Amino acid sequence: MPGRGARRIPVFVLSSAPVMTFLSTLAAAWEKNDSLLCVGLDPDPARFPAHLRVKNGAILEFCKAIVTATADLVCAFKPQIAHFAAHRAEDQLEALIAHIHAAHPGIPVILDAKRGDIGDTAAQYAVEAFERFRADALTVNPYMGYDSIAPYLAYPDKGVILLCRTSNPGGGDLQALKVEGEPLYERIARLAAEKWNVSGQCALVVGATCPAELARARALVGDMPILSPGIGAQGGDIAAVVGAGQTRGGTGLILNSSRAILYAGADERYAQAARQSAQATRAAINAQRTRRRAKENGEE
Amino acid sequence: MPGRGARRIPVFVLSSAPVMTFLSTLAAAWEKNDSLLCVGLDPDPARFPAHLRVKNGAILEFCKAIVTATADLVCAFKPQIAHFAAHRAEDQLEALIAHIHAAHPGIPVILDAKRGDIGDTAAQYAVEAFERFRADALTVNPYMGYDSIAPYLAYPDKGVILLCRTSNPGGGDLQALKVEGEPLYERIARLAAEKWNVSGQCALVVGATCPAELARARALVGDMPILSPGIGAQGGDIAAVVGAGQTRGGTGLILNSSRAILYAGADERYAQAARQSAQATRAAINAQRTRRRAKENGEE
Repeated sequence: MPGRGARRIPVFVLSSAPVMTFLSTLAAAWEKNDSLLCVGLDPDPARFPAHLRVKNGAILEFCKAIVTATADLVCAFKPQIAHFAAHRAEDQLEALIAHIHAAHPGIPVILDAKRGDIGDTAAQYAVEAFERFRADALTVNPYMGYDSIAPYLAYPDKGVILLCRTSNPGGGDLQALKVEGEPLYERIARLAAEKWNVSGQCALVVGATCPAELARARALVGDMPILSPGIGAQGGDIAAVVGAGQTRGGTGLILNSSRAILYAGADERYAQAARQSAQATRAAINAQRTRRRAKENGEE
Repeated sequence: MPGRGARRIPVFVLSSAPVMTFLSTLAAAWEKNDSLLCVGLDPDPARFPAHLRVKNGAILEFCKAIVTATADLVCAFKPQIAHFAAHRAEDQLEALIAHIHAAHPGIPVILDAKRGDIGDTAAQYAVEAFERFRADALTVNPYMGYDSIAPYLAYPDKGVILLCRTSNPGGGDLQALKVEGEPLYERIARLAAEKWNVSGQCALVVGATCPAELARARALVGDMPILSPGIGAQGGDIAAVVGAGQTRGGTGLILNSSRAILYAGADERYAQAARQSAQATRAAINAQRTRRRAKENGEE
């Protein structure tokens, strides 16, 4: 019989389902779709097929078509917020993420916003990303230190993906500088793995254009997921990236391609073209993965 | 008489007014309002006076009242975007900045968004900040290197304010790390002054809670403006900050206070209370400024 204090304690006895976090959802999506591919949703109306360009709501329509065409081929979707904000399309971003959750449950949504601020302000960004937009994970810029990360960690089911080594030519301007004998990006990888990942929510961004740095980061962070942009239009070498970044189970990576998939076709069949590009990219990735073939070998 | 090619060359002979840039507008506002104070517009509906809390458009109404009450006391306004985005209030931010430009021309608006991304994406953030929101300057996170700054510099009349040393307790986690004998934040100050400021549009963020670092940054960047948050609720020492950061003319600083001014009063007279707080803060700042008193001394 419950005692006096029991009324204040909520008890959830009817559900035995585990709480799904970003990391567990991601792991399930790696498995279910046999894919490390993430499709980046960076809508650029100037590159839309002509019939869409003049339409109201074209950004949402375009992205939904891409999502529908690729949802069984990916481990995550990654909308990039600037491509919505520049067009006053925050409402379309909200609707897009709601659509992904409703139509494709189990595919996590990473909001790529690279937020970097502190205290009250970071808490507001967390509300924006996790409550308003209902993202499962957010990219965060760690330059302002631990208190710029802590407010996001207050959401225990969400992922916090920290910029470490980025794929752009100038990425090394600061990230490659030596601090006490190691490059700055390695220090961030170590801080993420050893100090900041207090609740197992952290992941890293390491660009696909720098596989040597990806291998170094992987050595420092164990099985922590690594989001690696740059395998598509930016020219990252898939074999090198998978070799450098995969974990022992052939997972651990979120390999993002945006433009090479979104704009694979220029006419009304753009979604089909995107699907073909995503299929080819997934196949190229999977050909490089070293997976335990226990099930296939009948060892189960 | 114009030759054949002349038709293609636009000639603006009727205006002899110089193009106003963020830096020239800021310099004029320092002078006109005799102020280094910047009021940070970080609206938090939970802290609004009770009569406003339930109102539609309360964020805009609150911020406009603060602007009206303080516009003759400041050198800039600095809206912080997360405080709008968390409440789906981008439209109110647009209206607020449009109001400042219309009602208080000559007071520059710094959009505090700490953007940090590259290429196409940074270009989209620039469209958002400078075309959609019509900000005069944007705060930018330099962790991704020069190509994360270049797209903003493509707007020659706009200011690009780079995070250097931030005022939060964890600001030193990375910024204070020694790179090749100097702290990372000093490297950023030097990069800003010596390499990145190709068109004279750059400024720095150095927190008011670390005046020693502010003095170091000032020594490295000459007369470049420095935005220094933290003199209000965060407790930065005004005398120390002005002493460390002012340039020879007693300017060079944009001293931001947000909460201490916005929430100086809790009832319907909040705008009056904000004005009193801004007056007192400006007076405390001005008491520390070392200015050439040429005009007052009749030396002109």
